[in-house]
This record gives sequence, C-alpha cells and structure tokens, in this order.
Amino acid sequence: MKVAVLGATGFTGEKLIEILIKHKFVEINYLTSRVPNPVSYSELFPRFKGRIFTKCERLDIPKALKKADFFFLALPHTVSMQVVPMLIEAKKKVVDLSADYRIEDTSLYNKFYNTLHTDKKNLKKAVYGLPEFFKDKIKRAVLVANPGCYPTSVILALAPLVKEKVIKRNIVVDAKSSITGAGRKAVIDYHFSNISGNIWAYKPFNHQHLPEIIQVIKGVSGLSYNITFVPHVVGIESGIYSTIYISFKKKATQELINSIYRRYYKNAPFVRILNGFPKLKDVVGTNFCDIGFSLKNDGLSAVVASCIDNLIKGAAGNAVQNMNIMCGFGEKEALLSVCQGNKAL
Amino acid sequence: MKVAVLGATGFTGEKLIEILIKHKFVEINYLTSRVPNPVSYSELFPRFKGRIFTKCERLDIPKALKKADFFFLALPHTVSMQVVPMLIEAKKKVVDLSADYRIEDTSLYNKFYNTLHTDKKNLKKAVYGLPEFFKDKIKRAVLVANPGCYPTSVILALAPLVKEKVIKRNIVVDAKSSITGAGRKAVIDYHFSNISGNIWAYKPFNHQHLPEIIQVIKGVSGLSYNITFVPHVVGIESGIYSTIYISFKKKATQELINSIYRRYYKNAPFVRILNGFPKLKDVVGTNFCDIGFSLKNDGLSAVVASCIDNLIKGAAGNAVQNMNIMCGFGEKEALLSVCQGNKAL
Amino acid sequence: MKVAVLGATGFTGEKLIEILIKHKFVEINYLTSRVPNPVSYSELFPRFKGRIFTKCERLDIPKALKKADFFFLALPHTVSMQVVPMLIEAKKKVVDLSADYRIEDTSLYNKFYNTLHTDKKNLKKAVYGLPEFFKDKIKRAVLVANPGCYPTSVILALAPLVKEKVIKRNIVVDAKSSITGAGRKAVIDYHFSNISGNIWAYKPFNHQHLPEIIQVIKGVSGLSYNITFVPHVVGIESGIYSTIYISFKKKATQELINSIYRRYYKNAPFVRILNGFPKLKDVVGTNFCDIGFSLKNDGLSAVVASCIDNLIKGAAGNAVQNMNIMCGFGEKEALLSVCQGNKAL
Amino acid sequence: MKVAVLGATGFTGEKLIEILIKHKFVEINYLTSRVPNPVSYSELFPRFKGRIFTKCERLDIPKALKKADFFFLALPHTVSMQVVPMLIEAKKKVVDLSADYRIEDTSLYNKFYNTLHTDKKNLKKAVYGLPEFFKDKIKRAVLVANPGCYPTSVILALAPLVKEKVIKRNIVVDAKSSITGAGRKAVIDYHFSNISGNIWAYKPFNHQHLPEIIQVIKGVSGLSYNITFVPHVVGIESGIYSTIYISFKKKATQELINSIYRRYYKNAPFVRILNGFPKLKDVVGTNFCDIGFSLKNDGLSAVVASCIDNLIKGAAGNAVQNMNIMCGFGEKEALLSVCQGNKAL
Repeated sequence: MKVAVLGATGFTGEKLIEILIKHKFVEINYLTSRVPNPVSYSELFPRFKGRIFTKCERLDIPKALKKADFFFLALPHTVSMQVVPMLIEAKKKVVDLSADYRIEDTSLYNKFYNTLHTDKKNLKKAVYGLPEFFKDKIKRAVLVANPGCYPTSVILALAPLVKEKVIKRNIVVDAKSSITGAGRKAVIDYHFSNISGNIWAYKPFNHQHLPEIIQVIKGVSGLSYNITFVPHVVGIESGIYSTIYISFKKKATQELINSIYRRYYKNAPFVRILNGFPKLKDVVGTNFCDIGFSLKNDGLSAVVASCIDNLIKGAAGNAVQNMNIMCGFGEKEALLSVCQGNKAL
Repeated sequence: MKVAVLGATGFTGEKLIEILIKHKFVEINYLTSRVPNPVSYSELFPRFKGRIFTKCERLDIPKALKKADFFFLALPHTVSMQVVPMLIEAKKKVVDLSADYRIEDTSLYNKFYNTLHTDKKNLKKAVYGLPEFFKDKIKRAVLVANPGCYPTSVILALAPLVKEKVIKRNIVVDAKSSITGAGRKAVIDYHFSNISGNIWAYKPFNHQHLPEIIQVIKGVSGLSYNITFVPHVVGIESGIYSTIYISFKKKATQELINSIYRRYYKNAPFVRILNGFPKLKDVVGTNFCDIGFSLKNDGLSAVVASCIDNLIKGAAGNAVQNMNIMCGFGEKEALLSVCQGNKAL
Repeated sequence: MKVAVLGATGFTGEKLIEILIKHKFVEINYLTSRVPNPVSYSELFPRFKGRIFTKCERLDIPKALKKADFFFLALPHTVSMQVVPMLIEAKKKVVDLSADYRIEDTSLYNKFYNTLHTDKKNLKKAVYGLPEFFKDKIKRAVLVANPGCYPTSVILALAPLVKEKVIKRNIVVDAKSSITGAGRKAVIDYHFSNISGNIWAYKPFNHQHLPEIIQVIKGVSGLSYNITFVPHVVGIESGIYSTIYISFKKKATQELINSIYRRYYKNAPFVRILNGFPKLKDVVGTNFCDIGFSLKNDGLSAVVASCIDNLIKGAAGNAVQNMNIMCGFGEKEALLSVCQGNKAL
Repeated sequence: MKVAVLGATGFTGEKLIEILIKHKFVEINYLTSRVPNPVSYSELFPRFKGRIFTKCERLDIPKALKKADFFFLALPHTVSMQVVPMLIEAKKKVVDLSADYRIEDTSLYNKFYNTLHTDKKNLKKAVYGLPEFFKDKIKRAVLVANPGCYPTSVILALAPLVKEKVIKRNIVVDAKSSITGAGRKAVIDYHFSNISGNIWAYKPFNHQHLPEIIQVIKGVSGLSYNITFVPHVVGIESGIYSTIYISFKKKATQELINSIYRRYYKNAPFVRILNGFPKLKDVVGTNFCDIGFSLKNDGLSAVVASCIDNLIKGAAGNAVQNMNIMCGFGEKEALLSVCQGNKAL
C-alpha cells in the first residue's frame, strides 16, 4: 500500500517515517513539508540515509491523490481540516494526528484551540483512534482522529475504572512530558539550556488536551468526572509519565483493580499492567503504555501511574496501529516484535 | 567560629563545605568520613583544590570536641543519634541533617525508619529547623533537626494556607526529585543509564518524609490533614519540584491567596512568591524556595507549585541558615548576595 | 535456530536480546547470568515484558549445549575463555563479545588485560569479527571475536586509508564515549551525578583497545602506525564519537579520499560515508557507522570523524551481523529496515 | 564603582550579572538589551528575583555615560566596535567580551568574522585580557579584549610549554564544548532534542578562535606553531574540555613538565595543575582552569587536558577578573572563596 506523510519534518512526521520504514506492507510514496524545493528526505535527516529514498516536497493535492492511498496527517492544528475534506472526497483513508477531528463539540474546539472549526461534515465521520476502546469503529473508519499524547496516557489508565464505575468524581492528573510534545520549533524556551535539568508546570485547568480527556471519559462511562489536569515539562529526552490520584466509591482491593485492568487489556497488545509503578524508560522507544497502581491501606484511594513514549504510543506508533486496524494488517506490524518460538508461561 | 562537618563525603556534606567555604565567620576545622586514613579533603574532591586544606578523617569524639564548637551532622539516620548525646553534653551546638531528631513521636520514627530511637532525651530538646516558621526557637536552640528535602518544599507551600484554615482536609502532593536526594550510593539503580531520561513514582502513601510533613502541618495549624504524598525520581541534575493540589473551604480569590503568602513570607529572605508557576532551574544552585499557584476559575481549588534545590534549601543551605540564626550571624551570610546599592522599587 | 546469550544482564547482553527478538530466524532459548535462582528475563528487565518469555539462570554447560546451537558470549574478559573451549568442542558456533579472542599476541593480551591467556588453541581459530574487512573468514568461522567498541569506530575510519598507504605514520585518535561502554557496574564513578554533564580523558597511551587497533591496522596494511589513542567519558546516553587526525604522504584531494572510502564500503550496508562530519545521534539506536572527513586546504592533513552506537555497531549489533554472516542469513536481518519499494536515486 | 553590562540578556551577560551581584565593590547600575521597553531584569530572568532591582533597557549612549564608570560589553561581534569608541573617548574603562578587539591583524579579523574592522584606533590600545600572562598590561589598560572561550582553555595549557620552547611545531587540539558557547539563539539546531545526547565536530581548520590562539601563542613564544584545532559540540550543560596532543623536541620528564606549569602558575589563583587528567565538572560553576597531562613512556609526546566553565573562566568570570585587576580590587573578589583560617599544608 502506498502511503503519504503530510508534515514529514516535525517530530511526529519523523517518527512516522521511522516506523513505516519497518512496515512490511507499506511503501512511503509521498512526503511533504514547507521546504522551498523538493529535497531528499534523508538529506534533511541524515539518520535516514540509506533507509529511504523518497523526496520531501511542498504539498500538492492532485499529486498527493495520485501518489498515495493512505494518508498520515502530521500537520499543525487547523491545517489538517483544510486538507482532510479533499482526501476524504477522493476516497482516501486518513489518520489525522492533529487535534482537528478529536473534539466532537466544536465550541469547545474553538475555545481551546482559539480558532473556528471549518469541517463539521467530516468531524461527524471521524472515529477517535484509541484502539483499546474503539477498535471496531476504527476498522470501518475512513477518517481516524489520532488521540493526543497526554490523553492517551490518561485515558488508558482511567477508562477501565470509570467504565466499571468504581471511582469517585474527583480525579487529579499530574503529567510530566518531554518537550518534544510541543513540536519542533525554534524558540528560546526549547533551547537546550532552558530544558536540560528543568521542570515546570504549565496550563493548569485549561490545557487543550483536557476537553479531549473529559469527552472520552464521559463517552466510555456515561458519567462526568471532575478532572484536575496539570501538565509539566521535564528535561528528559522522550516520554510522558502521568500520575493519577483517584478515590473509590467503596473499599477496593488490589485484586479488584488488577482484575479490572487485566480484563480490559487482555487482548490489547500494547498495554501492560505491572505490579508496582512503571518506569518511563521501559516504554521509551516502544508503542507500549505501561500502567501500575498502588492502593492505600484503607482501600479508599489509589495512585495510578501510566507512561508512554509521547511520540510513539502518544502519536506516530498509535497512528500506525490505527492504520494496521483500518487496513487489516496485523495490529503489531512494524510496532512490536516478540521473540520467535516463545510462549507465555 | 570553628565548625565541624561529620559525614563530609556524602552529597550533603560536600554541599555544606561548598557553602561554608564562603562564610565570613566560620572556619571549617574538622571533617570526618569513613576514610581508611586521614586524607586531604580536596584530594577526595578535586573541585575543592585550593579552596580548603582541611583533612578528612575518621570520627574521633574527643578530638572532635577539641576541634570545633559548632557541628553539622550529615550522617546516616541512626548514626546521628549515637553522636548527638556526646556533643550536646559537651555543650556544643548542633544542626543534625539526618531524620533522627525530626519526628516527635518515636513510634512513628521507629516504623518509618525501621529502627528504634535511642535518644529521647535530646529529641525533646530538638527544634525543627524550618526558619520561616520557627526562627525564635532556632535562635535559642542547641540542637536543630534540619528538615527533610521533600518536607521543606511541601511545608513552605502549605503552612500559610493551613494556618489560615482556608483549605480542605484532602491534599495531594506530587513531588519530583533529582536522585541526589537518595545519597551517594554505589547501586545499579543510580547508574547514569538508569536515571538519565527516566521518571518513576515510588513509596506512595508511606515515604518516610510523610509523617514529618503531617507532624509539622498539624503543629502549625492544630488540624489534621489527609495528605497523599507520591514522590518521583526524575533524571535531572538537582532539585525538587512539588505540585500540590488543594481545595478551599469557600470560594477563594487570587488576591486572598497572594496576600496570605506574601504576609507570611514578608521577612523570609529565601521564599519567593511568584506570579505563575516557578521553574526548577531558577532555584537550582540557590537557597531559595520559589512558590507559585494557579486558582481554578470557580475559586474552589488551586494548584501550588513549590521548588527548591534539594541539596541547598532542602539540606545544606537550610542548615547553614539555621547556624546563622543560632549564632547571630546574618541570616543570608554565605547563602545569598544582593546587588550592591540596589533598592527594591 | 536456537541461540543462547551467556551474560544476558549486562548492557551488551540486554542489547543482544533486544535485537534478537526482532530476528526472523532465531529463537532465544537460553539466557544466563549470576542470578541466585532462575527468573523470568522480563522480570529482571520489565521493558521486555510481553516480548520474551525465556528464563535467565546460572550457566550450566551441559544444559547450555542441549539448549542452543549458536552462542553469544557477553561475559567479562577471562570468563569467556573458560567457556569457549567447551562450546567449540561441542561443535557450537560462537560469537564472543569479550576481548579474550581478539588479540593474537598473548603477551600483549596478558599485559593489557592483566591476566594470563588460557586458551591459545581456540585463539588461533578465532576470526576477528569486523565484517567490512573479514567477511569471507567470518563466513567460515566457528569462533568469532567481536571487535571492541572503540576499535570498531577507529578501524572503520582508518583501514581504507592505511590499506591504500596514503597516510603517514603518526595518527591521533581522540575518542568520546558514553559510560555504558564500561559495563553495568555499581560504582560511585558511574553514579548519575558523576556522569551527567561531565567529560574526562582517561587511560592515555595504554587503553586496552589500543593493541587491538594497532594489530588490525597492521594486519590490513602490512604497516606499523604510531597511534596516539585517548578515550574520554562523556555524559551522554549512548555512542562513541572518534575524531581522528591524519596527515598524507602527498597532497590529497577531497575526491581521492571520498573515492577510497566509497570504494571500500560500496557493499557495506552499515557504513555510511557523509559529506561533512557526522552527528552522533544519527547513529544512536542503529547499527550504522557514519564517517565524514574534512581535508585541510593544503591537502596534507585531514580530520576524520567516525561514530557508532557503542552497544550496537560497537557490540551487540555487530555480533548479530556476524551471526547473520556465519549462518547465511541476510546480513541486515534484525538490524536494518529499508523502506519498501524505494530505490536509490 | 558603578558598572554597566551592555548585552545583559545573552548567556554571557546573564553570567556577568550573577557574578557582579556578589562583588563587594561594584554596583550594577545600567543594563541594556534589545528589549522593546525598559523592564526589570529579574522579570526577564526570575532567578534573579530579590537579588537585583536594576532595569534592563535599550542602549542609550549619553545615559550610559552618566550611569556607569566601568563597562562590560557582552555584545555581538561588530556591535562592540560601534560602541567602544564612544566609551573610550568618554574616559570609561571597558572589558569587551566580543572578538572585536582580540585580533591584531585586521585582515585576519575581517576574514574569520566576515566583516570589516572599523575601529583600528582603539584596537591598538586594546590589551588581550588573559591575566595569567598579561597582568601588568591589564593593570594599565582602559580597553581589555576578553579572550574567547576556546582560546582560554587552549592558551593556558600551551603557553608555558611554548614559552619554554620545549614542544615541536605540530599541535592537535580537540576541544569539546557545551552549546552555550554559541549564544542564546532561537534556532532548531540548539533545540533540546538536537543537543541532548549528541556530539559533533564542526569548523575544522577554520574556526574563528584559531587565529586568536595562533596570535597569542606566537606572541608569548615568538614562534609559529601549526595548530590543528577541531571544536565539538557536546550535549552537556556547561564547560569546555580541550585535549591537546603535543610532542617534545627532546625527551621530557614528568618533573620537567610539572615544574614548568607550576612555575608559570605559581601566582595564578585560577589555574590548577593536577596530577592526572581533570574532570570537567570540577570546574563547572567556577573561574578555575584545571590542567593535567600525561607523558608517553618514551618522553617524546604528551597529552594535555585543560578545562574551564565556558561562561565563567571562558567569558564572564575572566572579565570580572580583568576588572578586578584594572581597578585594583583583589583579583579573586566575587570569583573565589577560600575557607577561613585555612593554610596550605
């Protein structure tokens, strides 16, 4: 299958290409970015030398439609919704990694992204691309809205518990992220000297990923939760680590929580439930989300920690997982190898 | 004044020496560690070459008593309480940086530090060395228990609010720390490769600093709070960043919270109240605690972020601040320079 | 094919497993380490959870011989040469990642590794496993001595030039390495705080990799070179960056040097010759060695920079490349994916 | 004394202010940068909150002349030489941290800095501000050209040896620097993700600091040396580590080299000669240059390693050292504390 990556030079675009190169059933046939002239992608990113020979060029829709059947859009918010209508009309399949098709309520979208939504028609068709909960819809989708990085780590930790209605309304989410989540931008704030060794909280109560989290949590549970979400920038290479503080409606046990998580993720190849808290580096470079929890002695509250590589399970890896599902490839293709001949004990 | 640092080769001991070298009224006259033979301190730590000529040797109490009048104990927990009685009996003044004299309730101490307290007599005399709240007692103290690193960042953020009785009982503290807080130990877990780029939560609900926080918060407010405290190791050089989630008994305003903080810290040279959240690197290398908060629109909850250099305000710097107060030196001596001739506007 | 990794819990062993999991023709059937009791490997390294189910146990030779046909030895120096004779006698194929079979002259080995070589018989059979220069021998080998990490980066940069006899006798090699090259050891020197942000030179003139470099350079060229080799530890995650200072017997041109390199590495899938100096991060996580050079205006001297991931091309990746060659698998299997359908332009 | 820092918001300007705040005899009275409107310096850099109350404003020469008697120019190259003539004419004393007054031969300056020198008059008056070799001239100077960061580390290591004429003509300098040396610029290349964990060589043979090194080395020795200088960017917080490869005219001994270094730096408070190679972190945050060397067994060649904090001894610290000398303050004032009462053994 011929695929295109629109927005190939951002962090997410680059990671998409790294993953798609390993994909057995996919040919990367069209790459775009705001380059002045067509240029070999591996000239822009020498790490890809010898691994991909596709050029990177400015987006030209008619050409794009000829070149590829499947489109990954790693474009900035608001740019995606200018492009998607043309791709959908031409019967292409699309995974959009921007926020443009994630928020059902356009007034919320307009407010948190400070713009006006211009493609309500396709917004209605769009499927929220979290395979662990919406795989059937993703299978049939032509347009998948790939989740945000923070929401992926938070929703995977919370969704089983809210669906089972065991936790109370108030939830605190303290999330720590690598700066790559903010995109590849030439700003002083992202200078090595400002990030290395630094930590800071930002956008409390009003980060644009909060309405996305609330919408999906409500969608799966039918209930409204009061989520206090505070993201932090931390001076690390990659990854998101979300620490989530919950309380239970009635006394919970280790076994109960464990059994809920394990039941929901029995067939989810990329969610691992651990005994004890996860460490971020165990998921960096992978499409895994590792989740662990600790229950307070009284059984009335718990802390859940959930971590992902923000550019993989939080973006490009999950996007490829969506493509695999949409196109009937193996869900793990290009994303996970398991030792030959091994069987779980 | 002649001072001694017992336990001079740990992270805290090293930082004490770095600060004391700058002190105008202090001579570092005795240094101890578990070295096989006396050795020049600057041979152990070449960064001090040319700055200090004191030797480092094994602790010998009679010698210690002759050599110094003021003692900093940067010894492991349980070792301090073997040494303190002899120093106090000899009328020396002591700042103990271990946990041995922090916890009033020895049953709690025994439980959280997994040992038996052996010096209840001096424990009663000990003053909790947080100058922002106990300066008068510190002035008259002969034995000061220097606070733990996490408690310093948390208590400075919470104490004004609990004293004013504006916040509700449930508090969540999500704290992020550099690994130096765990001491200089040769263990695989602290290997560069395991820390760099990593984050993990640990000891939820039962970190040994939790009873210390609860005791002091209760001490200043007369009230019991339900504090959920989850520390994290983060792959950064130095510092602690505590994010604290609180809710208010009744609708609060930005002005109210601000005025409470500013009133309590009006005369505290090392606490800075910011507009907006602090950044960790702004306090690294200093004795400052920077505090900022964000109030939710409904005025019913807030997030407070508080950060310190864990080895300075969280240990050695605060210890020198205590000495300055106990001995009548300027509180800022060796800890803070302010531009000559400058006046606040 | 059933493979074993002896010494599976060091940095190199761990990286071998990460690579072998991706290998289509290999089953990891036996893992050893100095564990007290057999334990699931993914319990020791949670990042492998769900990817490998093999246990890790203490080495038992009879069991090892039954379990596997191909052996990777990621054992400490001197331990390898105790094990290799039994494996070779049992007709197993071996890639040894220690230094035990790299140095032909045992008096040099004894001196630089401060021990006595005890297996001269197999030493004679051993083939130096640098595929770019000894592929034919590797094909027929039963025992391959995988090169050291520094030698790999240095020899790949120098060998074409010395074989062509264009450079003079005196060569300076300034090499910078991640601390992972020193192995996973619980020592204070490798504590995060001692490595992060640090750089230091060590073992000038007498690093144990120097006789290896000199032997191979002499082997391919027939000439003796005077190589000044100074390694450095640098506070980075992964990789080696070797900067090499050479002078030419007669005026050289950009084209000449370029053509020499390109000719030698025309069919080497893992050596990339760049225009300009390489950047380390472009090879981190890959089996590539990137080489670039700059010629001085007068054509009489040049600087060559060569970089690798020290645990991949400098150890585990190259070992798997050797196995691929020894066993007739594709040389790139498990090591390199190239975008489907792409053709070099 | 009232001082001004022109260019107060770059890395060097910021470090100057950090040091000058500690200076007992100096009041920071005027700060400039390309800010749109006057703004409190501590608002721009919250780490200075409570430590300095000076505003930062756009440069206005008449105002500057009224406000300060001593000027630090942390301006970009070419901007300095527009400002210096006015300051000198007004009888102000100046330390210029740009390159504008370092290179005596304007044709070299023009070539390496790709511009035209416009102030040859003051260039003639300027004194090269390396106190270890030009203290007498600095004492009487009105305009001091503060050395470049690389040159400081290299010249301090080489000057004693070339003055003693013991080393041969060919010298290789392999230097590793933190990215802060390149200034605070919003470019993608300095993004955290491009620097963290990375190393690369750049500008071989033609870095703009090379003519400066050559000029000073020739100036002190009367001889021309052939210096191959290759700088590297390394993903560390701070510092420069220069590894220098030299050979001797005749067999040298450890004692000889040691005695040369110690003789030259007997009275230099900021140069420390070590036994063995220095570690970078031992000088980070200080004004020290640590130098160590290793002699080859044959006594005919050696490796010298020299390291500094690039923003302190390599820029702001050395500039303050120059001011101290020019103004008759103690040379160590604001730069170095030595433990009270201690005497060298």
